Amino acid sequence: MKTYLDCIPCFIRQTLDAVRVATTDPALHELALREILKAAGEVDFSLPPPLMGHRIHHLIRTLTNVPDPYKLLKDQYNTYVLGLYPALKELVEGSPGPIETAARLAIAGNIIDFGATIKVDQSIVDKTIESSLGDKLFGSMAEFQAAVNSAGRILYIGDNAGEIVFDRLLIEQLPTERVTFVVRGGPVINDVTMADAMDTGMTELVKVIDNGSDVQGIILEECSEEFRQSFAKADLVIAKGQGNYETLSGVEKPIFFLLKAKCLVVAGHIGCDLGSMVIGRVEDFKPQELNHHV
Amino acid sequence: MKTYLDCIPCFIRQTLDAVRVATTDPALHELALREILKAAGEVDFSLPPPLMGHRIHHLIRTLTNVPDPYKLLKDQYNTYVLGLYPALKELVEGSPGPIETAARLAIAGNIIDFGATIKVDQSIVDKTIESSLGDKLFGSMAEFQAAVNSAGRILYIGDNAGEIVFDRLLIEQLPTERVTFVVRGGPVINDVTMADAMDTGMTELVKVIDNGSDVQGIILEECSEEFRQSFAKADLVIAKGQGNYETLSGVEKPIFFLLKAKCLVVAGHIGCDLGSMVIGRVEDFKPQELNHHV
Repeated sequence: MKTYLDCIPCFIRQTLDAVRVATTDPALHELALREILKAAGEVDFSLPPPLMGHRIHHLIRTLTNVPDPYKLLKDQYNTYVLGLYPALKELVEGSPGPIETAARLAIAGNIIDFGATIKVDQSIVDKTIESSLGDKLFGSMAEFQAAVNSAGRILYIGDNAGEIVFDRLLIEQLPTERVTFVVRGGPVINDVTMADAMDTGMTELVKVIDNGSDVQGIILEECSEEFRQSFAKADLVIAKGQGNYETLSGVEKPIFFLLKAKCLVVAGHIGCDLGSMVIGRVEDFKPQELNHHV
Repeated sequence: MKTYLDCIPCFIRQTLDAVRVATTDPALHELALREILKAAGEVDFSLPPPLMGHRIHHLIRTLTNVPDPYKLLKDQYNTYVLGLYPALKELVEGSPGPIETAARLAIAGNIIDFGATIKVDQSIVDKTIESSLGDKLFGSMAEFQAAVNSAGRILYIGDNAGEIVFDRLLIEQLPTERVTFVVRGGPVINDVTMADAMDTGMTELVKVIDNGSDVQGIILEECSEEFRQSFAKADLVIAKGQGNYETLSGVEKPIFFLLKAKCLVVAGHIGCDLGSMVIGRVEDFKPQELNHHV
C-alpha cells in the first residue's frame, strides 16, 4: 500500500506522541518535530507508510539516545495481558468454536497499537475484548480455517507487545508444530521483539524468528536472508496488524491479514468500516475509491 | 498565545481539509501539503497559531487561484442559521434572561469553525444549540452583563460565517447604538467578511467595519488604521472564537472572550475542559500547566 496524503498529519502526530514517550525534554520534542516535518515534505508517496514510521522512530531513538523508548509500555502490556490470559484461555476452550474465539481475541489484541493512537489504555483493551466476541468479522473465518488446515508451513507475523499474548491464544489452536512466529529484528515503537516473545511464553510454544529489520511491517528487501527463506517456503502467512498489511498487501503470497482497522486510510484500502475486525486475503477485500486521497 | 507543538499536526490536517475544499486536483493537494510541511518545519513558536493558518489559506488561494474557497460553505451556513433565526429569536425573548440565552447561543454558534475540524454539519450545530442552553458556562455571565452596562463603546469582533447570525441574536440584546461589529478584511477559511454581515442583516443592526486584515484573528500591526483606532477607543471588546482568543489573549484591554473551546491547546491555555462554553476575561482564566506542550 502506498502512502496517502491523510497519512501525513498522522505521521506528525505520531512523531509528537513518540518523542514524548522517549523524553521529557521539550527541546528534543521540537527538534524531532521539525526534522520529521522536513522529511515528510519530501516523502515518496509510492512507498508504504511504515517507511516513514521507521524514519520517525529511528530519528527519535538517535536524538534522545534511548534505544527502546517503548520498553516500559511494552512490558506493562505484556504483563497486563498475561494477567488476562488464564481467563481468556478458559473462554476459548469453553466456547463452541475455539479457533474462531481465539481468532477474534487475536484481532481484538491488535488494538494495542501506539502508532494508530497513543490513547490506548487498559479499559480500551477490556472493551475491545468484550465487543470482539460478538462483532461481525470482515472476511471469512471458514476460509481462514481451511487455509490453516491445508497449509504445511505457517508463518505467523506478529505485530505488537501485549497483542502477542492474544496471538498465543490463537496459535495454541493451530497445529503448533507447523507454525513459526515472527518478531521484528529490533525495537520500533511498541512492535513485538524477541524479548516479548520470551517474556510471554511464545518461544516455548512455537519456533520464533526475527525478521532482521526494525520497520513496523515487512519490507522483504530489508529483512534477513533467514526470514526471506522462511517467507518463501511458507504455504500460509498470517500477518497481524496494519503495518504488516501496509507493507505486504501488494506481495503475491497466500496471506491472511488479521487486524482491527484503526484508521480511515487502511479501512478504505480494505473496503471495511473504521473499527472493523478483519480476517481475510487481499482478494477478499473491496478497496473503496479513496477519492479524497491522492 | 504562542504556537504549541500540538498545533502542528492540526495545521497539517487543516491544510489538507482546506485544499480539498478549494480544488479536487490531487496534484494541488500534494503540493499544498508539501509546502506547508516545509513552512511548519521552520515555524516560529513564539507567534500565535493564526499566523500559520494565514499562511496555509493564503498559499491555498494562490495555488488554486480560488480567491474564496469557503464561499459556498459560508453562504450555506448563513442561510441555514438564518432559517433557525426566527425560532431562536423567540426563544431568546421568551426566556427569563434574554441576554444570557442570547450569549449562550452566540457561544454555541462558534461551533461553525472549519479550522478546528472540517466535520461540522448542521446536525452538530443543532445539537450544540440544544446543549448550550443548559451547559455550565466557564466564566461569569453577571460580569459580562456588568461590563456591557458600563461600557460606552463596545467592539464586537466576529469570527465565522453562520455564527454571525448567532452574534446578531446577542447584539440585539446589547445597546446597539454603542456596538460596532468587526469582520475580517478579506476571505480566510470560513471567517466572517463584510459580505456575510450584509447577507445576515448585521449591517442593518449596527455599524460594521472590517479590520483590514485576512488573518483568522486580530494581529493589531496587520490591521487598518481605522480598525486600530476603533480598538483603542473601545471600552469593551467582545471577541468571538479561538482565533481571536489566540491573537488577543496577550493584549492589555478589557476583552471578554466568548467561545467554544474546541481544541486541547486552547482549552488548556484557558484552563477549561474541551468543549467548554467560555465567557470571560484572561484574568478569569486559570491556564493549566501545558507540560506536554513546549
